Amino acid sequence: MKQTSGYIIGVDLGGTNVRSILIGSKGRVWARDARKSLTSQGKEVAIEQIVGSLESVLEEARSDGLRRLSILGVGVGSPGPLNTEEGIVHFAPNLPGWENVPLVRILTDRIQLPIYLENDANAAALGEWWMGAGRSVDDLVLLTLGTGIGGGIIIGGEVLHGAWDAAAEVGHMIIHEGGLLCNCGVHGCLEAYASATAVVARTMVAIKQGRGTTLEKCVGGTAEGLTSELIFRAAAEGDALSSEIVEETARFLGIGIANLVNLLDPCLVILAGGMIKAGPLLLEPVRKYVTEYSLKASTREVRIVPSQLGVDSGTIGAAATVLKRKGFL
Amino acid sequence: MKQTSGYIIGVDLGGTNVRSILIGSKGRVWARDARKSLTSQGKEVAIEQIVGSLESVLEEARSDGLRRLSILGVGVGSPGPLNTEEGIVHFAPNLPGWENVPLVRILTDRIQLPIYLENDANAAALGEWWMGAGRSVDDLVLLTLGTGIGGGIIIGGEVLHGAWDAAAEVGHMIIHEGGLLCNCGVHGCLEAYASATAVVARTMVAIKQGRGTTLEKCVGGTAEGLTSELIFRAAAEGDALSSEIVEETARFLGIGIANLVNLLDPCLVILAGGMIKAGPLLLEPVRKYVTEYSLKASTREVRIVPSQLGVDSGTIGAAATVLKRKGFL
Repeated sequence: MKQTSGYIIGVDLGGTNVRSILIGSKGRVWARDARKSLTSQGKEVAIEQIVGSLESVLEEARSDGLRRLSILGVGVGSPGPLNTEEGIVHFAPNLPGWENVPLVRILTDRIQLPIYLENDANAAALGEWWMGAGRSVDDLVLLTLGTGIGGGIIIGGEVLHGAWDAAAEVGHMIIHEGGLLCNCGVHGCLEAYASATAVVARTMVAIKQGRGTTLEKCVGGTAEGLTSELIFRAAAEGDALSSEIVEETARFLGIGIANLVNLLDPCLVILAGGMIKAGPLLLEPVRKYVTEYSLKASTREVRIVPSQLGVDSGTIGAAATVLKRKGFL
Repeated sequence: MKQTSGYIIGVDLGGTNVRSILIGSKGRVWARDARKSLTSQGKEVAIEQIVGSLESVLEEARSDGLRRLSILGVGVGSPGPLNTEEGIVHFAPNLPGWENVPLVRILTDRIQLPIYLENDANAAALGEWWMGAGRSVDDLVLLTLGTGIGGGIIIGGEVLHGAWDAAAEVGHMIIHEGGLLCNCGVHGCLEAYASATAVVARTMVAIKQGRGTTLEKCVGGTAEGLTSELIFRAAAEGDALSSEIVEETARFLGIGIANLVNLLDPCLVILAGGMIKAGPLLLEPVRKYVTEYSLKASTREVRIVPSQLGVDSGTIGAAATVLKRKGFL
């Protein structure tokens, strides 16, 4: 492994926020930027936002005396499917109008720095491996629990990209064939059972079936006001329906994670994304169910922990991508 | 990668047969041995069998003029869980009385050659990667479809062992939570739906429920006479129940393989084990269901093919383990 004393930039291209970070090759943060995602306004607006965010961290670092020449490159974490080697975003459900966008070429023309593309959940896994909950291990799986369920797999300290940059689609693992319909068109995916969206949907079904709950006040019969956060809070306050929903959600996640454990045998499973705000209320039963549903290899002691970097895992991991591609990490 | 002109031995320690092969480092076969497995008679008898099989191929090669000094080592493929680095078989359902057996130390004492241990399904995957259906690719998954369902995963040309040598337990992937009870004690594992044993069990349930079938003549109401081979043959001859069972089996396998494709994004999936004798009758619908149940990454063209080495994949892969550990492959 080569040594470097340069600086790197990471960008996380989310559906809600575009975030950038400028850090030293040892992880010291020099500048940050976060702005609301305007991706719904189309490709050109989204690209201007990325460029604006990048220029903001470059400007902040420059005013601190950091020379542009010492910047090794920019890593961009983007939803997929994409081609990391050619730098193309093929398609992204959260980026309307994006179809085979040569993002690396476009940004290189604008920024005049080396640009590297990585899948957003892979970047989060790499970030946690480099600077977060996975610092001490080389084999881990990260799940992002939010609107959907994404995943990143690190094996031997390297991101598992797969043959067509399409690995680690954890959310579309079928855990109940013939079960609930997923956004992808298949029945029974983990995402259809255990994403934040699915938690709300399953609760609404129970309410419509006449189950009493303290949540009724919040929702007034429509799903609009209901969020997974409210459900987790109501569970913490003793609401019976919400507690059942949380337990069931932990069971579904436990099944999905047990499948990952049986297939990949990682040291560590990291849970990230909005749903981990629920804390031990979700994490404890998830651990119980993973033990229940995974094979008892005589020596296995897999740990299941929350993300340490929070919203920074994506940007820090995108930055780490630069070091990986240049052979510094 | 270093070059070698030595010879290697592979042993496959199966529940039915113990097989050995002596081959050149380029894959030329010099000697073979196969003998009925006496593993049910306990550890000592099983070890004598392995030693006998090894001495048989060594003797055959010696009579061909091959010097013992030119033998690089012996790879042993064993059911697990096991510890490949320490050479210990922790436990094996098909090897009664085996508990934390230091197989490598025992065999080294008897044979005076370097001995290397590998999980049997991993060895089969490595064998197909080295000399069989996976020769041209570096990312593949192999499933053994027999009494149970095992698996081996090759990523970047290396066997995925996992943190505790417990990776690739494909058969215990839960595809229908709360569904059929598996031997492992969990409900809904792929093995409980799509192994040869499961195919027979599902057919027997349908017959007991009064479904008419040409199979009735064979079985006379008991499960003893019925085999998955008979069911596949009856399906080929147009028996309606058998055809449904085969189609359902292909669907379950398609779901399991789609999960593997979505997680690992391999170039190639290889099907091995007794059930692949069914040929296109099983393989064609499996392919259809994998396409139906896996995410359509824009560029993905995963191939699903039968094993090329057949019963030799385990021994050839065990032999390849020697080359891998010594850095020749």
